[in-house]
Amino acid sequence: MINETMYQMGNKLSVIRELFSYGLKQAAVVGKENVFDFSIGNPSVPSPKAVTEAFQKLCAEEDSLPIHSYTLARGSVEARAAVAANLAMRTGTLVRPDNIFLTCGAAPALCAVMKALSLEDSEILVIAPYFAEYRPFIEFSGNKMVVVPADMENFQINFPELEKCINEHTQAIVVNSPNNPTGAVYSYETLSKLSKLLKAKSKEYGHPIYIISDEPYRELVYDDAYVHYIPDIYPNTIICYSYSKVFSLPGERIGYFFIPDCVEDGERLYYAASGAARVNGHVCAPSLQQKVIQICADVKPDISVYDRNRVVLYDALTNYGYQCVKPQGAFYLFVKAPYGTAKEFSDRAKLDNLLIVPGDEFGCPEYFRASICVSYDMIIRSLPIFKKLIEEKPE
Amino acid sequence: MINETMYQMGNKLSVIRELFSYGLKQAAVVGKENVFDFSIGNPSVPSPKAVTEAFQKLCAEEDSLPIHSYTLARGSVEARAAVAANLAMRTGTLVRPDNIFLTCGAAPALCAVMKALSLEDSEILVIAPYFAEYRPFIEFSGNKMVVVPADMENFQINFPELEKCINEHTQAIVVNSPNNPTGAVYSYETLSKLSKLLKAKSKEYGHPIYIISDEPYRELVYDDAYVHYIPDIYPNTIICYSYSKVFSLPGERIGYFFIPDCVEDGERLYYAASGAARVNGHVCAPSLQQKVIQICADVKPDISVYDRNRVVLYDALTNYGYQCVKPQGAFYLFVKAPYGTAKEFSDRAKLDNLLIVPGDEFGCPEYFRASICVSYDMIIRSLPIFKKLIEEKPE
Repeated sequence: MINETMYQMGNKLSVIRELFSYGLKQAAVVGKENVFDFSIGNPSVPSPKAVTEAFQKLCAEEDSLPIHSYTLARGSVEARAAVAANLAMRTGTLVRPDNIFLTCGAAPALCAVMKALSLEDSEILVIAPYFAEYRPFIEFSGNKMVVVPADMENFQINFPELEKCINEHTQAIVVNSPNNPTGAVYSYETLSKLSKLLKAKSKEYGHPIYIISDEPYRELVYDDAYVHYIPDIYPNTIICYSYSKVFSLPGERIGYFFIPDCVEDGERLYYAASGAARVNGHVCAPSLQQKVIQICADVKPDISVYDRNRVVLYDALTNYGYQCVKPQGAFYLFVKAPYGTAKEFSDRAKLDNLLIVPGDEFGCPEYFRASICVSYDMIIRSLPIFKKLIEEKPE
Repeated sequence: MINETMYQMGNKLSVIRELFSYGLKQAAVVGKENVFDFSIGNPSVPSPKAVTEAFQKLCAEEDSLPIHSYTLARGSVEARAAVAANLAMRTGTLVRPDNIFLTCGAAPALCAVMKALSLEDSEILVIAPYFAEYRPFIEFSGNKMVVVPADMENFQINFPELEKCINEHTQAIVVNSPNNPTGAVYSYETLSKLSKLLKAKSKEYGHPIYIISDEPYRELVYDDAYVHYIPDIYPNTIICYSYSKVFSLPGERIGYFFIPDCVEDGERLYYAASGAARVNGHVCAPSLQQKVIQICADVKPDISVYDRNRVVLYDALTNYGYQCVKPQGAFYLFVKAPYGTAKEFSDRAKLDNLLIVPGDEFGCPEYFRASICVSYDMIIRSLPIFKKLIEEKPE
């Protein structure tokens, strides 16, 4: 008398979580220094000093009540005002506190927005390779997930394939740039083409097709990469955001959905997503974390450590003969398995306690993902194993 | 092209939240000291010193990474071990860390457990008066909500009515003792009768009927009231808990569901509820808050302030002629409207900036709820208004 589908969802860990759990257990067996865990996107750089100081300052407040009290479900007006002001500054547009709804991270924000868009037969598109948890979020919010095959050349968008996937049931497409797992950042050209296509299709089917822009890696870009503000290019864009990566607070569950004024039917969508959050058990985002964001909305991260990791791992792997598009953002390398499937290669690597994520769940079973948010030292120590593994390639 | 049901859920605030919002706005107009807000269950006593110190100590840690990192979805093993040890001590039973799943408060814990129990035609019972948010939690987790009419005498359980509500589709009954809104604490006699009935009905229908015990007020009891450990009386009991009330951390979103080993099919239920949490967007409970609980699992609250409020408000109101069962726990008074419906009475009180919650949404439209987790001073200053209002009673 237990819901079987939920049992399956709970019993079967995501491959990433499984590897992460395995890594913890294995560390107890062979020693932490002998496990090379590239599985999870757990930031490896301490939180910015301003963030740490904000936590300290708030916790030192003499009166604990205002720190820990309930806020409005959408978040305190002060915290939302700080976020809105930061977004206004960054985008050069008017952003009001009531465009923002603070959530316990990006995951529940995505679930809420997707549930708000669910209709009979509604479909939401994702572009391969995609963050594996999109599938449960989309399917259990009452939508069908449609996978747009990858652009295997540059991990931008395969437009002929995308066009084939759009029909009258298409409610939204998830855009994730900088991308997990590839590190690709969508160019202005890509976004313009996407905008043009979605505008034409929205017109053809007589209803807006929304972009749901999942942007947890927005500030983590390297070299001269630039992350465009998508609503400027395509107005019907909803933004889901998390402070997990930028402030190294992944466990603290603070993020938001942001529905700009330019979004068609935006106010109704905001309320519908609020309602969806409510029925999923949302009460408010953690209040202390809200106050930290209120203080730190304008703080910028130091990404030099990730950048160094990215360069050293990318250079070493490509030097050994691995194929990989150089990531422009986020903190992953998406690497072609040098032989066999990525699953087979990942299983082989596991024998040497090297934990990399096969791309099956991302919709690209030929590739594996390696996080670069790990210690530089671990990367250096892992290189001989990467080298040995590719040298095992059968002739 | 927006989901209409979700829109309705988001657009229509709960009456409590609406009053709370109104109170904030009205305070800006007439001055904070002239608003008597008895609407919301926001603890008015600072967090225990040990809790505040734990926050301070953790935020002062030199290495911020271990504090703010992802944990397992169910929570860190250390935090769950501390919770389990506390529960073991309190209950005299074996409790393992893997019986516990840490959540962002009781609301998502309830949603997860209810979704795990949802089947075609499944029904979950609540006993009037009940916490109003049970309805969205039950209905949107895929169950039908069935309301058991109240025991208007003592706010225990109306067993003849309960028996009528149980059928082959009954999956669970929600028990909330100490009760919101009445403050009633279920006696051993009540729980024994409940156990006997549920055992017979489980046998009759050939499947367990679970108790979902929602216990956020477990430690908030007065005089000689005692909160029984329900699994000792009825093994098929799942416990949902929140630290919101006991540690005055309602905004911080930390709680759990706990499925003891004695629960039939308990492990499957645990995984199913984990899966339900996942598809609702749960990643982990806030990691800093997990660590606070790890340190403070055994800390006891000081409830003397609530007790003083309870006594002074109860004594004054009954002295003026209001009818009210003296609450044994939680922090509310549930009072019969002296004339008209409670909605009418609450609307009238609002004109004097006295904010009380009509019982309609609790399933008892003749009663209103007044929180006692407010300042003693505000209670004293509000008494003349309560007195005036009952004196307006039409002959």
